[in-house]
Amino acid sequence: MNATAFGAPRVATPIFADRAAAYIAAHAFDRPTLVVSRDRVAMQYEQLQSGLGRAAIHYAMRANPAPEVIETLVSMGAGFEVMSRRDIELCLSRGADPDTMCFGNTLKCASDIAFAYAAGIRLFAADCSDELHKIAVHAPGVRVLVQVLVENPMADMPPSRSFGCRPSDVPELMDIARDLGLVTYGLSFLGGSQIRDSADWYPVLDQIVPVWHAVREAGHDVQLLNIGGGFPAFYGKSIRSPRAYAADVMAAVEARFADVAQIMATPGRALVAEAGHIVAEVVTVCRKSENDLHRWVGLNIGHSSGLAETDGEAIRYPLVTDHDGTDTGPCVLSGPTSEASDVMYQKRPVKLPLGLARGDRVVIRNAGAYTVNTSWAGSDFIPPLDVIVI
Amino acid sequence: MNATAFGAPRVATPIFADRAAAYIAAHAFDRPTLVVSRDRVAMQYEQLQSGLGRAAIHYAMRANPAPEVIETLVSMGAGFEVMSRRDIELCLSRGADPDTMCFGNTLKCASDIAFAYAAGIRLFAADCSDELHKIAVHAPGVRVLVQVLVENPMADMPPSRSFGCRPSDVPELMDIARDLGLVTYGLSFLGGSQIRDSADWYPVLDQIVPVWHAVREAGHDVQLLNIGGGFPAFYGKSIRSPRAYAADVMAAVEARFADVAQIMATPGRALVAEAGHIVAEVVTVCRKSENDLHRWVGLNIGHSSGLAETDGEAIRYPLVTDHDGTDTGPCVLSGPTSEASDVMYQKRPVKLPLGLARGDRVVIRNAGAYTVNTSWAGSDFIPPLDVIVI
Repeated sequence: MNATAFGAPRVATPIFADRAAAYIAAHAFDRPTLVVSRDRVAMQYEQLQSGLGRAAIHYAMRANPAPEVIETLVSMGAGFEVMSRRDIELCLSRGADPDTMCFGNTLKCASDIAFAYAAGIRLFAADCSDELHKIAVHAPGVRVLVQVLVENPMADMPPSRSFGCRPSDVPELMDIARDLGLVTYGLSFLGGSQIRDSADWYPVLDQIVPVWHAVREAGHDVQLLNIGGGFPAFYGKSIRSPRAYAADVMAAVEARFADVAQIMATPGRALVAEAGHIVAEVVTVCRKSENDLHRWVGLNIGHSSGLAETDGEAIRYPLVTDHDGTDTGPCVLSGPTSEASDVMYQKRPVKLPLGLARGDRVVIRNAGAYTVNTSWAGSDFIPPLDVIVI
Repeated sequence: MNATAFGAPRVATPIFADRAAAYIAAHAFDRPTLVVSRDRVAMQYEQLQSGLGRAAIHYAMRANPAPEVIETLVSMGAGFEVMSRRDIELCLSRGADPDTMCFGNTLKCASDIAFAYAAGIRLFAADCSDELHKIAVHAPGVRVLVQVLVENPMADMPPSRSFGCRPSDVPELMDIARDLGLVTYGLSFLGGSQIRDSADWYPVLDQIVPVWHAVREAGHDVQLLNIGGGFPAFYGKSIRSPRAYAADVMAAVEARFADVAQIMATPGRALVAEAGHIVAEVVTVCRKSENDLHRWVGLNIGHSSGLAETDGEAIRYPLVTDHDGTDTGPCVLSGPTSEASDVMYQKRPVKLPLGLARGDRVVIRNAGAYTVNTSWAGSDFIPPLDVIVI
């Protein structure tokens, strides 16, 4: 848990002028718009890959499925973690090789499995026998990764209890897979999202060590360990550089799994979050009463129109306004729907300049991940978030 | 709180064969589909209007903005509560008269206010002075309803603290509105959503009485009381018929506001929820381990693809399968994304037949409200919920 264990102080990723920010500064927008810089995506990939060394990156494309982002990562040599037929079609249309795709969803539709198999994908995740049976029927003989549940309360967004099997059930699932004619190829896990401190990977990896050994002892010649994602983005709290962070994680992996032939990782957020910013506008500023301790700032974007990750307030986007540097005060933010579900940061208000007024621009920084695909469709309120990739 | 106070036992709305259910039974669907019956929408409207008597219904169209639903309600003579420019355009395109529209969003974009005014809308809600200033500039001289916060812990989904002003601030806001040249036309409030017991309206209405009197004493000739929505739909727990429920509410309104010239209500859920059902399919059934007390049932629809109201588990849809009548056991439901956010009813599992298997159909009943417009756009996983209005 102690960052100094790495012998180096942790430094914040600076909020420097970047291409997306420069584009935003130079343009007018008549609706909420995410501007993503391909250069920054490429830079993040390069840094992360350099730190990860021999581990192969399979981009968790649900973080940002913009076609131009996929294209950029294909050109850099990335692999992909796909979750549906649509993901596969998108990757193929941008030139990705099916050999670089892992079907990571543990709740796959049978028709999607068949589609993936026909497209040439040969690596599938599973966490229960029903899933293995589906794979065996619709993608006979492919390689499977059994997904294991791990605990990681230190992640900003801890891993779900929903996807993955209990460690003690892995050997039996491996046996079932082999009996079904599948290749028991390895293990995967997800240590949560936004694991800010690389030291928090140690106890997670420690949970996998006995599982790996149990599987090998049960006679399965497993080759691949998928360490999942969880690589952090900068939202105001200091994190290490992607390279240093990934190198720390890989050192911890090698210390435990040096003899594992293949390591793969599925970062999403770390590749795209800092590459994009959302331009929004203040719709209303009001104090509900003279005694209110904070203002209510209504924006033209909210929880249901792209900022779903404000849920639980784990992700707190850095906000930039033209009034920065002047006196600030606490605000509750609200989206444009007049619905309770669209209120953001009610538990811990954000600080914004006192001079902020209706019509002012608010830039929601580092919002390139989990925003494009989390705005509600067919909303009667607002069109989906606009996306510009430069 | 005691339903017997009405002198009549409460009876459950029966799950009878309806047109949407019949259509579903007779057709095959290759993706999650909401089937809505116009007849049932019309029937709900008729019943509710009959109970509401002189109160005018303004449909909260965010509950289901399907164009055919709007058209049906226009033909029945309903008014509309609109929340955005898109709502207004949709209503106008289906023949609604701008005189029947109330702009109920308290966080309106200035350009939407101007659009509404140009379209002929003359009734606007507001809950703070900034909103009043915007209205005065972009819709000069219109009628305004000041929205008041109320408490109603008894609603299945209690009212948000976010939209509405404190009761003590209403007279000052009315003064500001008058000074800005607006017509101080009335009050509005929202007692929450899914208020199952009509008796739970009494304490809410009691909160409004002193506000109404204070406003009149301050010299404002208010004419209209908007009692909002909260009229319930049947999700398995017994509710009264729409007519009986609405008549109870109106009796309580008249007992307190007999001298108020105009009453209006903005039901949404009560008009459309029971008119629609979603056809879904089982993608995976598994027990995470032998010791698991319940099964995990993966569906091809989840929290982020239409079932956002499963949040907090307040709304528990009745589920119908072809195995009904056989032995059941507890299940956690999951949508098709392998994301923690897509898990439903984890706190209180639902009971489903033990024979339920992959490929089986699950009908999610009474899902006509807040489903069409709560599926995420641009999801890499799944296309938005399909909608068929018959």
